[in-house]
Amino acid sequence: MKKIKHIVFGGAGFVGINLVKKLQEKNETILVVDNLSNSRKDVLLNISNKSLVFFKHLDINNTYDMEGLSKTYSFDKQSIVWHLAANSDIASGIDDITIDLNDTFLTTIAILKFCKLNSIKQLAFASSSAVYGNLDGIAVSEEHGPLYPISNYGAMKLASEAAISAAFEQYLDKSIIFRFPNVVGFPSTHGVIHDFINKLKQNPNILNVLGDGNQQKCYVHSEDLADMLINIFDETFGLDILNIGPEDDGIKVSRIAELVVDKMSQDAEIRYEDKKQGWVGDVPVFKYDSTKMISLGFKPLKSSEEAVIQTISQILTESF
Amino acid sequence: MKKIKHIVFGGAGFVGINLVKKLQEKNETILVVDNLSNSRKDVLLNISNKSLVFFKHLDINNTYDMEGLSKTYSFDKQSIVWHLAANSDIASGIDDITIDLNDTFLTTIAILKFCKLNSIKQLAFASSSAVYGNLDGIAVSEEHGPLYPISNYGAMKLASEAAISAAFEQYLDKSIIFRFPNVVGFPSTHGVIHDFINKLKQNPNILNVLGDGNQQKCYVHSEDLADMLINIFDETFGLDILNIGPEDDGIKVSRIAELVVDKMSQDAEIRYEDKKQGWVGDVPVFKYDSTKMISLGFKPLKSSEEAVIQTISQILTESF
Repeated sequence: MKKIKHIVFGGAGFVGINLVKKLQEKNETILVVDNLSNSRKDVLLNISNKSLVFFKHLDINNTYDMEGLSKTYSFDKQSIVWHLAANSDIASGIDDITIDLNDTFLTTIAILKFCKLNSIKQLAFASSSAVYGNLDGIAVSEEHGPLYPISNYGAMKLASEAAISAAFEQYLDKSIIFRFPNVVGFPSTHGVIHDFINKLKQNPNILNVLGDGNQQKCYVHSEDLADMLINIFDETFGLDILNIGPEDDGIKVSRIAELVVDKMSQDAEIRYEDKKQGWVGDVPVFKYDSTKMISLGFKPLKSSEEAVIQTISQILTESF
Repeated sequence: MKKIKHIVFGGAGFVGINLVKKLQEKNETILVVDNLSNSRKDVLLNISNKSLVFFKHLDINNTYDMEGLSKTYSFDKQSIVWHLAANSDIASGIDDITIDLNDTFLTTIAILKFCKLNSIKQLAFASSSAVYGNLDGIAVSEEHGPLYPISNYGAMKLASEAAISAAFEQYLDKSIIFRFPNVVGFPSTHGVIHDFINKLKQNPNILNVLGDGNQQKCYVHSEDLADMLINIFDETFGLDILNIGPEDDGIKVSRIAELVVDKMSQDAEIRYEDKKQGWVGDVPVFKYDSTKMISLGFKPLKSSEEAVIQTISQILTESF
């Protein structure tokens, strides 16, 4: 069997599928490892070139299964681990840290052990803007500190970054940490656009928005993101942290509501709440300083609004 | 039974004992919880006022025992949790992250669950300068970022800070995170001074130093530290992170070697290695920006050198 070049943990999830779709254009072997929670294996199988993409269903936190992976497949120092395995629903982990402890953090520990065991020296990690917490709309750069995450998800992403940093000192040659903004596209499973679409499907006359609609955040489209991950990883080295975001200051929730209503149910009334935060752990206004990414020569093709518009169509048609 | 005012996790360890010694001067009830690994229960019992200090031997990561604690003792919103439970030997955790994952990080998760379960709203946390990694002697402030810890210990301290930050958003009213420098004093159990004393006891003629002796770090004496923890906690609020350090730029390993040799075996030959780092994960030169602490009106009574000199005597005499 050919040696595996790319191992994508969480590769049957929303961002993982977009990454696999782009990676196979390189004509290199890919192993997707996923526990199929909150995943879309149907879409993954649909886009996969069967001669390049292998799939293994397992729980990354199961030591026995992970050691089995090392016996079944062949890896080397040139292999790259893409670590996208995490709980992807921030709100679901607010009440109980166990979800993000297991799915967002302990997966990182397990993946680092996998790298060490197999002498894999290259790691790309999907971190998050959630590590920054609530900064009241200050455009935040990678140098910002100290970090006060307000969700267990953000906390466990920061914890993962820390573990990767120590692993780099010991046995990794390259560890690129990407701090994602909100990512939209197909086949996403939740988030504000899904929320609005689902509500309008239930009641085409009223759209109840969580919060006052003034929440404003940056969005990157998953196809843009996948391109950037691959290209930036190729162009960077050592241990590095990069904000990935659009050049704009984001789009308001009220504008997203209008765009969804315009597409689905033009007469619907949009109702807002009298509070800034949509839910505990939500960051109402988030701006991103992507200077470092841009200075390396990279930027998304689509703005936040363009990414949202494309995503509304993709979710409604269930297609790329 | 009287309500417990202070719960000191890791209270039978080196810093914990110094904290308990000072806390009981307030004449408030104290519960010490410790697994007695790397601890000095003999010293704790020796210094404890029996009417104020209660002791419970348990493993913080044992959910059943921790829930038992909540049934045995009475706590309230005015109680303060002092979280000093951790692996305290950075070097021991370099090869295997399991030690610091369990003892330095998962203890934090367990203690946060304990706070939530018992509606305890106030937490003081012993973090570490190890979160900063190797900054080549730049005087580092709390605002420094991004953080690249180089030891699993530093990584799991940073991970703990992140979890505490998210808990503050949800159910804590006050969370003060103290980033400790190197702490010396009695009854410490390991570190450079112990290393030198043990070597000279084995061979009074030669002292083999790890590294080239130019490693330079800040030291705070444990009695100074305990005073500052209590006083600063009283004077701060909300969620905050503070470097705790001396005003000086530290003391070189070669100077520590001379001080120990001078006290124990004046004719001993001091031998150095031809490398900057004493061990993997060691930070050769570390300077601390304690401006924030000083601006609040606090500083240690002893300099780095004075702290080291007092500690050499204390270790040799096994006494405060």
